[in-house]
Amino acid sequence: MSRAMPKWEPIEGDLATPLGFRAAAVSAGIKKTRDALDLALIFSDSPATTAAGVFTTNQVAAAPVLLSRQNLVESRGRCRAIVVNSGNANACTGKEGMHTAEETARATAVVLGIEPSQVLLASTGVIGVTLKMDLILQQLPHLKERLSKENAKAVAHAIMTTDTVPKICAVRSEAKGKAVHIAGIAKGAGMIHPRMATMLSFITTDASMGERMLHNLLIGAAEDSFNRVTVDGDTSTNDTVLALASGLTEAAVIPGNDSRAWFAEGLTLVCQTLARMIARDGEGASKLVTVEVVGARTPLDADRVARAIANSPLVKTALAGADPNWGRILCAAGYSGAKFDPNRVDVSANHLALCRKGVDAGFDEAAAHRELEQKEILLHVDLHAGRATARIWTCDLTRGYTDINASYRS
Amino acid sequence: MSRAMPKWEPIEGDLATPLGFRAAAVSAGIKKTRDALDLALIFSDSPATTAAGVFTTNQVAAAPVLLSRQNLVESRGRCRAIVVNSGNANACTGKEGMHTAEETARATAVVLGIEPSQVLLASTGVIGVTLKMDLILQQLPHLKERLSKENAKAVAHAIMTTDTVPKICAVRSEAKGKAVHIAGIAKGAGMIHPRMATMLSFITTDASMGERMLHNLLIGAAEDSFNRVTVDGDTSTNDTVLALASGLTEAAVIPGNDSRAWFAEGLTLVCQTLARMIARDGEGASKLVTVEVVGARTPLDADRVARAIANSPLVKTALAGADPNWGRILCAAGYSGAKFDPNRVDVSANHLALCRKGVDAGFDEAAAHRELEQKEILLHVDLHAGRATARIWTCDLTRGYTDINASYRS
Repeated sequence: MSRAMPKWEPIEGDLATPLGFRAAAVSAGIKKTRDALDLALIFSDSPATTAAGVFTTNQVAAAPVLLSRQNLVESRGRCRAIVVNSGNANACTGKEGMHTAEETARATAVVLGIEPSQVLLASTGVIGVTLKMDLILQQLPHLKERLSKENAKAVAHAIMTTDTVPKICAVRSEAKGKAVHIAGIAKGAGMIHPRMATMLSFITTDASMGERMLHNLLIGAAEDSFNRVTVDGDTSTNDTVLALASGLTEAAVIPGNDSRAWFAEGLTLVCQTLARMIARDGEGASKLVTVEVVGARTPLDADRVARAIANSPLVKTALAGADPNWGRILCAAGYSGAKFDPNRVDVSANHLALCRKGVDAGFDEAAAHRELEQKEILLHVDLHAGRATARIWTCDLTRGYTDINASYRS
Repeated sequence: MSRAMPKWEPIEGDLATPLGFRAAAVSAGIKKTRDALDLALIFSDSPATTAAGVFTTNQVAAAPVLLSRQNLVESRGRCRAIVVNSGNANACTGKEGMHTAEETARATAVVLGIEPSQVLLASTGVIGVTLKMDLILQQLPHLKERLSKENAKAVAHAIMTTDTVPKICAVRSEAKGKAVHIAGIAKGAGMIHPRMATMLSFITTDASMGERMLHNLLIGAAEDSFNRVTVDGDTSTNDTVLALASGLTEAAVIPGNDSRAWFAEGLTLVCQTLARMIARDGEGASKLVTVEVVGARTPLDADRVARAIANSPLVKTALAGADPNWGRILCAAGYSGAKFDPNRVDVSANHLALCRKGVDAGFDEAAAHRELEQKEILLHVDLHAGRATARIWTCDLTRGYTDINASYRS
C-alpha cells in the first residue's frame, strides 16, 4: 500500500464499537448452563449499511447458513442485523430447523423495523438437536431494548461454546483526519479447520463501501486468516464470517485508489488477530503453533506441506509433550503430496535447528525440550525446492481435547 | 470364486508357519526396554521362493524401504530373507542410514549364503535417530542359529512398538488333497492410515507362484485390508508389507484358472484379519469401529465419505465417550467432497437408527449410549445417492492416544 495512507493501530480497552453499531446479549436458556449468555443481536442504525458473508464449504450446511446466504442475495447486501445463538447449531434439523431460522429473521425484522431479508443469522453448538424457536423469539424485544455501544464483550461471551476466553479485536486509523474503526469478535475452539470451521466471526466497520467491495475484501482477509487456522481438521456445518459496514465516517473505500489496500490491511489485521486467538484457544490447547513453510516449488505445495504438518496428530501430540520429534514433521511433509527432496529439508523450532538437509541437526535435547515448552512455537520448514511460502496457525493436541470431545453432547 | 475350490480355514494355536520357512527373534538392544525382542529374521529355505512388496507412498521413505524396493527389482522377485527391527525406523537418517541398510543386507547374505539382493529389510520406531549398525550385525549369526518353525509369536513380538498385543494370523486350505498355508504377522498401533501407515506385515505361504502373480495378488489384498485401516490419518515413512512364497506344496497359483481367485481369497482373509487387529489395537483405542458407507454415487464418493468419518477426531472422540453424536458423522460426510443430498442420509450404529433423512431418528438416548459402549461398533451410513459402497476400519480416539504420543520419543 501507499506510504501516504495512515496505519491501523490496535484499540485497547472496551470502546471497540464502530460508529452506528449497537449490540446486546441475553441468556435465553439455549445453553444448559443456567444464566449463561447464549443469544445476541448486532444492529446497524444506518440505512446505508452494506453487508457481506463468507460461509462453510461443508455440503451439510446449517439452516442459519442457508438463510443468511439467501438473505445477502435477496437484500442485495443491505443486511443490518445479525442474530446469533450458541448452545445449538440448528444443523441437521431438516425443515423444522429452516422454519425456525425463517421465523427468527421475520420476527427480528418486525422488532427492528427492517425487512426480513436484512437479517443475518448464525448458530453454534450441538448438531442434530431441535433449536427451540420460542426461546429466541421471546427474547427479541429484550434484545432490542438493551442495544448499546458498550456490549461488545457481552456479545463475544454469548457466542462462546468450548472457548475458554472471549475473542475481541478492534483497530483504528484515520481518513481525511477523522477516526475510522474496524472491530471484530469471534469464537472458535473445536472443529477449526482450513476452509472455515465452527468458527463464527462478526466484523463491523464505520468505513463506507459498496457491498461488492466489502465482499471481495472479506474473502481476501478470511483467506489470509480464518482459512489458515486448523485445530482438528474438521470443517463444520456452521462456519460463518459476516461483515457490516455502516458508512458513518467519511472514509470511503472505492476501487481504483489507495483506499482499497488501506482498508484491506486493517481488515486482515483484525481477522488475523482473531484467527490467532482461535488457534491459541483450540480445544485443550496449551500453545499457539505457527507452521511456516518456505522454499516450496509452488504456493500449492507450500500450503499442502504447512497444512499436513499442522493437521498431523503425531506432530501435535509431540508438541504437547515438548518433544522435538522433527521426524514426524518431515514425515507429514512427505505425505502432503508436495514435491521436494527429503535430503534438502531444514526444520527449526523457534529458530533452533532440529533437522538440516533431512537429518538430525545435532541439537541439544534438553535445550530443544525447553524451547518447545514455550507458549508460542514457530515451526519453520525450508524445503529448498523453490520460492513459494505458506503459513498456518494451529495448536498442540493434548489430553484436554479428547476429554472435551468425548462428552460434548451428553 | 468357483465352488469347486476348497475353502480357507483359520488355524488356531502356534503352528502357523508354512512349509519352508523358519524364523528367529532376539533382543539386540535397539529398544530402550532391557531384554525386549527387537530384531528378527524370517528365512525361506527354498531357492524357488518368490517375493513381493508393497510400500509406503510417503515421499520421505526410510532407508530399509528404499533398499527393499531396490532388491526386489535387482533379484527379480527372488528374495528369501527378511530382517526387521523395531525401536528405530532408520528414517530421516541420510546417507549413514542407507549405508546401515546396505551393510545389513550384505552381512545377512553372507551369513545365510544368499545374494545381498535377496535380503529384504524393514524397520519401525523413532524417526531421525541413527540406527546403530553394530547392534544388528553382531546378532546375525545368533539369529541364523536360532532359526526355527516355532518362532512366529516371538517374531510378532519383536516387531511391536506401541502395539499392546502381537498380531498373528494363519489359514489353511487344500490343493490336490494336500494342505496349503498362508500365515501373516503385523504391527500397527500409531500412524495408521490409508495408503499404509507405520504398519509392517510379513506374509508367508507354501503355495507356488511367479513373483508377478504374487505381487499382483498382494497389491489387491493390501488394498482391501491394510489400506482400509486408519488410526490417526498419518502415513508413515516405513510402511511395508512383504510376501514370500516358498512353493513347497503342490498348490500352484497360475493365471487363467480358479487357483488365482482361490489364493486371493486366502491372502485377503489373512490381510483383513491382521488389518482389523491393527485397528482394534490403535494407540489408546478402546473399540474397533467399522465405517460402512452404502448408497454412494460412485466408489470414490463412498471411499471419501468413509475415510472422512473414520478420520474425524470429533467422531472418534464421541465414540470414545459412547456419545451418539450422529451430527458429527453427517458433518464429516459433508466435507468429504462427495456429492449427496443431506436430507436423504440415514445413519445407524450397530443397527440402531440414529439419523433418518438427515434428522434425528428419535432414538432412545440411554439405549444408544449403551450400544456405543460395545467393543465393536458398526457405523452404517446410507447416502441414498447411488449404489456404490466402501468400508474402513478405525478405532476411537481416547486420552490414551495423546498420552502415548506426547512422549513417544523422549
